[in-house]
Parts: sequence; C-alpha cells; structure tokens
Amino acid sequence: MADSKPLPSLDGDPVAAEAWLRDVFEIIVDEAIRKGTRASEKVCEWKEPEELKSLLDLELQSHGETQEKILERCRAVIHYSVKTGHPRFFNQLFSGLDPHALAGRIITESLNTSQYTYEIAPVFVLMEEEVLKKLRALVGWSSGDGVFCPGGSISNMYAMNLARYQRYPDCKQRGLRALPPLAIFTSKECHYSVNKGAAFLGLGTDSVRVVKADERGKMIPKDLERQISLAEAKGAVPFLVSATSGTTVLGAFDPLNAIADVCQRHGLWLHVDAAWGGSVLLSQTHRHLLDGIQRADSVAWNPHKLLGAGLQCSALLLQDTSNLLKRCHESQARYLFQQDKFYDVALDTGDKVVQCGRRVDCLKLWLLWKAQGRQGLEQRINRAFALSQYLVEEIKKREGFELVMEPEFVNVCFWFVPPSLRGKQESLDYSQRLSQVAPVLKERMVKAGSMMIGYQPHGAWGNFFRVIVVNPMLTHTDIDFLLDELERLGQDL
Amino acid sequence: MADSKPLPSLDGDPVAAEAWLRDVFEIIVDEAIRKGTRASEKVCEWKEPEELKSLLDLELQSHGETQEKILERCRAVIHYSVKTGHPRFFNQLFSGLDPHALAGRIITESLNTSQYTYEIAPVFVLMEEEVLKKLRALVGWSSGDGVFCPGGSISNMYAMNLARYQRYPDCKQRGLRALPPLAIFTSKECHYSVNKGAAFLGLGTDSVRVVKADERGKMIPKDLERQISLAEAKGAVPFLVSATSGTTVLGAFDPLNAIADVCQRHGLWLHVDAAWGGSVLLSQTHRHLLDGIQRADSVAWNPHKLLGAGLQCSALLLQDTSNLLKRCHESQARYLFQQDKFYDVALDTGDKVVQCGRRVDCLKLWLLWKAQGRQGLEQRINRAFALSQYLVEEIKKREGFELVMEPEFVNVCFWFVPPSLRGKQESLDYSQRLSQVAPVLKERMVKAGSMMIGYQPHGAWGNFFRVIVVNPMLTHTDIDFLLDELERLGQDL
Repeated sequence: MADSKPLPSLDGDPVAAEAWLRDVFEIIVDEAIRKGTRASEKVCEWKEPEELKSLLDLELQSHGETQEKILERCRAVIHYSVKTGHPRFFNQLFSGLDPHALAGRIITESLNTSQYTYEIAPVFVLMEEEVLKKLRALVGWSSGDGVFCPGGSISNMYAMNLARYQRYPDCKQRGLRALPPLAIFTSKECHYSVNKGAAFLGLGTDSVRVVKADERGKMIPKDLERQISLAEAKGAVPFLVSATSGTTVLGAFDPLNAIADVCQRHGLWLHVDAAWGGSVLLSQTHRHLLDGIQRADSVAWNPHKLLGAGLQCSALLLQDTSNLLKRCHESQARYLFQQDKFYDVALDTGDKVVQCGRRVDCLKLWLLWKAQGRQGLEQRINRAFALSQYLVEEIKKREGFELVMEPEFVNVCFWFVPPSLRGKQESLDYSQRLSQVAPVLKERMVKAGSMMIGYQPHGAWGNFFRVIVVNPMLTHTDIDFLLDELERLGQDL
Repeated sequence: MADSKPLPSLDGDPVAAEAWLRDVFEIIVDEAIRKGTRASEKVCEWKEPEELKSLLDLELQSHGETQEKILERCRAVIHYSVKTGHPRFFNQLFSGLDPHALAGRIITESLNTSQYTYEIAPVFVLMEEEVLKKLRALVGWSSGDGVFCPGGSISNMYAMNLARYQRYPDCKQRGLRALPPLAIFTSKECHYSVNKGAAFLGLGTDSVRVVKADERGKMIPKDLERQISLAEAKGAVPFLVSATSGTTVLGAFDPLNAIADVCQRHGLWLHVDAAWGGSVLLSQTHRHLLDGIQRADSVAWNPHKLLGAGLQCSALLLQDTSNLLKRCHESQARYLFQQDKFYDVALDTGDKVVQCGRRVDCLKLWLLWKAQGRQGLEQRINRAFALSQYLVEEIKKREGFELVMEPEFVNVCFWFVPPSLRGKQESLDYSQRLSQVAPVLKERMVKAGSMMIGYQPHGAWGNFFRVIVVNPMLTHTDIDFLLDELERLGQDL
C-alpha cells in the first residue's frame, strides 16, 4: 500500500518546484535568449560527437541527481546546442526567436494538453479554428476545413490521402488493391516528402511522375500535360498534382493558375505545398507569387518557417466543406468521442486526424499574430524580401561571389569562388574544384562558431551556398558580416 | 530597400523581450503551476463555446496589441484551459506536471531546433540515441534501432510500414498493388490507431482481422491462430500481429509469450503497442505483465503517459540491427543529408523518418530520468499501482460503487450506482438507466470544476467511469475526494 508521503525530488513540494523552475528560467534567459540571439556570441559550439557525449555525461543512471546538478545540465544542454535564433543562423528555413511565439510555446508546454476534445482543450479547439480560418482567408477561401499537423511532410501526406479518398472512398476500407494504379504529379524541384508520402501511403514512389521544371525551378505546365497523357497511356489514373510555392533550395513558385487549369481539365485534386512560401500570402506586395492558390483543393503551410512561430506549426488547409477530412480519417472511438456528451460533440475535432493525441500548435501563432497584427507580420515578410535583395546586390558588387540565379524569394543561392579559382572558369576541373569549396567553408564557419549557412549540389550544379533570409532581427550589418566572413574563411583557398 | 531599424513590438529590443518574458513566466508560475496543481483550485473553468469565444476575443486583427494586453491574454488562455497537472484530473492517460520534464520542454522550445542532423541538433542527436538505448534495454534488447514519433498512433503506423517493407521491399517503390492482399491481426481491445493506420497506409481497414479477447480484455492466442488460418484460407498473407500492453479502457496486457509463439510459427512481425503500458517495464514488481516483450520486432512506448514526460514523447523501438528503419524511409535529399560533410553523416538520423523537420522529444525524458533516476521512476510506477489498489479497496467498501473488474493496471473501471438505482439490478431498464448516470455526473463535475474522470460504454457494457491513477502527486486524500465527490454529485439521482 502506498503511503501518502510525497516522493523524493520536487514531487509534492510546489514551493521548491517553483523556485527551481525560476532558476531554470534564468538559465534559459541567459544562455538561450540573451547569448543565443546576440551577434557577438557564437551561433554554435562545435564538438566532435565523442567529446560532446562525455561533456554532457549522457548516460542515464539508477540514482537521481540533486537539483543543482540538474541546473548545470540544463545550462550545458543549451550551451552546446545550436542557437537557431541567432542572427548568424542562415542554415534552415527557420531562424529567429520571437518572444511572443516563444511565450505561446512555453504556455502550451505548461498546460500539456491534447487537441482532441473540447473537454480537455476548450481554449485550443476554438483557437485552432480561428487561426485556420484566418489562414484560409489569406488563401482566398471564405469557408473550408483544416488541421495542424506535425510538420509539412505529414500535411502533404494528409493531402494525398484525402485526394485518393475523395475519388475512391472505398480505399479506406478495401485498400489500394481495390483501386486502379494511381498517379501523382509533381515537379522535380518538389520537396522529398512527396516521395516519402507516396511510399508510406502504399502508393509506391513509382506512382510519383516527375514533371520538368524551367531554369528557375518552376513546374512547366506543358510538361505536366504531357506526363498526364503518358501516365494514362500506361494505364494509370492521375488523381493529384502537388505544386510547390517556395521550393526548398531555389525558392521557386510554381505557376498555380496554369497548373490549376490543367487540373480542372483533367479533374485532378490540386495540392499546393506552400510549407515554405505560404506566409508570402500576408504580403500585399509579394503575394502575386501565389496567384491562383485559391483554386487549390488543399494547401500545406508552415508558419514555423517564414513567420517564426516555432517548431512545429504546420497547417493543412482545405477548401472542402463536406466534412471530407473527418470522413476520411474518423474511426469513432467510443472512449474518447462519446456521443452522449453534454456539449456539442462537433467541437471534438480529434477524429479528423490519423493521430490520437495531438499537440497544441495554434497558440504560438495566435499570440504572435495578436502581438504583431497582420500588418506587423506583413512588414516582416516584406523586410525579409528587401534584405534578400540587399544581399543579392552586395554579392554582385563583390569579387569572388557568383549568384546561381536572381532569386524571387528569400533563398539566395550563390557560389563563393576562392582566390585560387577566380578567372579559371575555363579550366576542365573548375566545377569540380568549386564544388569542394562550400564543404570546407562550412566546416570552418561551424568550428569557428561564427555563422551557419547551408549548401548543397542541385541538378547539374556542384555545391553552392543557400542563404535563407528569414530572421526578423537581421540587419544590413548581419548581411555584410556574412559576406565578409566567407571572404575571411576562404582567403587561402 | 529595408533599412536596418528594428521592427515594432519586441523585435530587436532584447532587454525589453527578456523583461516581458519574465512577466509571462510569472503568470505561468501563478496560473499554470501554482493554481494549476493545487487541489483547492478548480481543475477546469467550464464555459460554453460561444461565451468562451467572446471571453477570449479570439479574432485575429490587422493591428498588433500592447505588451500589457498580450500578458492579459496569456493569463486568460491559462485560466480557461483544463489543468491536466491537477491532482483531480483523472480523465486521460496522462496527468501531473513534473518540474524537471517541464524544464526540458521549455528548453526544447527555447532552442527551437529540428532533430534531423547532427549539424543543427548535436546534443539531441546523441541524447535521443542514449534515451532510446535505455528504453530498449528495458525491453530486453542490447542492440537495435528506434526513433521518437509524434504520438503513439504514428509509432504504430511506422511499425506497420516497417513490417510490410521487411517482407516486401518492393512495396516502397511499386506500392501495394504489386503485393498480395495482406492481413494484420490485433485484438478487439486494441487502440483505434491500428485501424486508422491500416487505412492511411493504403492497406484498408478490411486488412485488420479482429482477434477475440477474454473477459479481462486480453487477446486470446487460440483465436489468433484461428484468425490467421481464416485469413490464409481467404487468400490473404498475414504479416503482422499488433499486441497491446495496456489497453486504453481496461488496461489489459496481452499474453506476449503465447502471441510470440504464434508469430514465430507463422513468421509474422510482432509489434507491441505498449504506448500506455510500456513504462511498467521500469518496475521490478510489475514488469511481468509484459513478459515476452523482448520477443517483439517493434515496440511503441509513450513516456508522456505513465512517466509524465509531457506531450509528446512516443518512442518506436526496434530489435532490428540491419538499418531497416532507414532503408524503409530514406529518400536521400541532397540539400539536407549531404554526403560530403566534415563529420560522420551516420549521425544525421533524419532520413530514418517520414517527416522532414522533427521535434526534439528526448530532452524532457532525459532530464526527468536524470533527476529521478531509474529508481525514482520505478517508485512512481509502483506507487501508481498501489494507489489504484487503494481506490479499488475503497470502491469495494462503499455502497453504490460497482467495479467492472479487478484491474491489473492503473485503469480503475467502475459504475457509480445512484441511490434510485440501488438494489434494482433486476429491473429491465437497469443497464440503460445506469448508462445514463456517468454523462450526467461528468457534466456536473466539469461545471463544478471539481474533478475530471473519463467514461465510456465498452462492448456490451453501458457507460462506466475509467479513473486513471497516474499523477505522481496523488495521495489517499485525492482518491477519497474522488469517491466522496461522486457521491455528492450523484446523491439526487
């Protein structure tokens, strides 16, 4: 029989727990918020894996540790982690540390609830609906449906599953063997989640037909037509086109109106993977890049990227008003979605999803939006575009920098050509040698902790840098630093 | 051209941001941590949806708001949310607010990184491996693989996808149409995610063959044999058995050794959905409930439930050492998983999963474990069992309470029989009238804010309460209160 004494550690001692959590919060403020966003501090503290393992003393033991020891551990974890909120973090499609969004995330963690029923998440059920409604309005829909998913890849999978269910409702019960072979169309510049999703959903990667893109990375609608004909000729049934608004590497926007025309002609579901580019809809100046998105059947949009809401915040938006989302995914578990509840059970949205427990992902965006307003968010987007353009202009002015192309978004792609390769464009091994530059510079910048920029080969091109201009705290100084630092790191190459 | 002036709001003013975040933290301490875990405060503050919408002023506007206004909003969001850390929250398979796990969650949010590469998550790539290794060791495996997934449903889907890929690697490329019809076996007491997963993965819910369970909710291995023969006779290929360790409603543990024998005989993948019951492996006293789990091919285990790590923390564990997880899911995106990095790219575990960005779910459990030690966690599990037993004994002592069955886990299922129904077991409408009691009491307790307990019908049984004893702060007083409060709320029925 248990007695009613509290357990060791902080269990059952709320005063001590509060005091200890305040200490943790001070460490977070010091290490993650203050140092973590200050340009004069390192963006990362590189350690080789074996050394880091030993510094962190990762192994889990039988005995618990003192509160002081745990505080030290908190500090070490932050110290050796990459500071993604730092103004020199250009490595991913997210960067920055917005205090309002962070507040939303911390409150979410403190409340620790699941989004499935009004019963245990009354505030967040209503809030999610409001946030989704607002995102849908920006797409151009006055009604519809939607849900927050754990990341854009899963949002894209949801769209695939909905598209096939809409055409073949039998599939839910009888599976794909009851269906003809299906075909999905997407451009060669699409995100890899389309392939992963096709495999996971049992369609197989062969069902993904790759449509050509132009030299800027945009899907070519004529080739889409051609691929549809080719697929049909081989006996496959086209059912879905996945267009991209903001490709991962080049930041390209597919021509949605032309693609929507093709979809309309062939009766295909149009999904727009706007995980990266969706937030551009907030900008009156730049939203033309997504012209036609209102003709989509579904849109994936990750406010954790360009809007900085924090990982993860990924909305799947639907034009559908026929409850397709619920019909496709529901299984009516009686222990959770009882029909004899004392409130309107239509508020229990948990059966719309394939998860059971689902994290609250709306509060961080809601608080951020309340604080900034639509106008503040728009200003951020416009500012990111303008700073990207500043980076482009500076690249053009400097020797040893070569743009891959003029960007239309905030992905700025370029080669740094070190002194020894300048003027050698004609030599046979130029491309190969140029491709070896970025990995070396990446190693140097990470080991110096001075900045982080991603690089990759792409198509026929060797490795080039992809700078993502997204952190709202960036200034011209940070952009200038980025270029100076590449010159400094690469001067002996 | 953007200038380099900071944006309005807190952007670019780190001192103001810090001060404001401290204010937020004080609100969290006051509302969520202090009041949210104090028995004398309400566990929930019920409002009808329309009233709540208006109280929260949910609508998102064009203009941003002042910092003071946002602080008020933070307070309101917490105030009207359900306090899942409260000692009177018995509603779900999680409850409680562990300070160390919460610290891990807040640090995770402050660092805001993604788990895909060593480059941007060095600490967490290593930490995840250590935590998974420890969980595998508790299963009984000295080697293996694994990953944290966004919830148990997705962990279960991963297992299904791995099982079919192992048997039919072609499926990834060619899809299910290239395969014979497949069959999954699980008991009628299994979690609904097995059905959802089969639909999502294109197998169809028809592929799920329901095996009978005994009166305690445990799968009957003989019926499993029978169902396998039946499926084969109909031309289906059995490939996976999903056993459950800790069913959702009754808390039943399937007989894993007997099921493993069947799987071995037929060459089937054995998945154990131990999302709820997995944490019992930490208890020397009770881990016999999962005897045989080491014979599984995969195990889903959610430390966010019984261990209180916080939503979400769901591990998929694999016995496999052949890199099956990666082979099944990889797509080798060159922009993220470059092969010419300056460190060992085997550390970039992101291609093991079907997501791209993936939240850090290991830190909260790691910190909790460091603080409590294996022994502290074991003590919590044992204590939950003991308190459940206390609840059972008290139920037996009181008039008007009827156990559904003697529990073997911390799900305590019972009917409250109100005064007007006592001694009326023989009347024809007894069951029907009894079934109407729980919804009424649920409404009353929620509107009073005094406690939250789940109820459900189950099989042939009408609505009964399911109390989950999991919050480590619970004492006998809380259990006594629960029963007294049911009596108080139901005295006029």
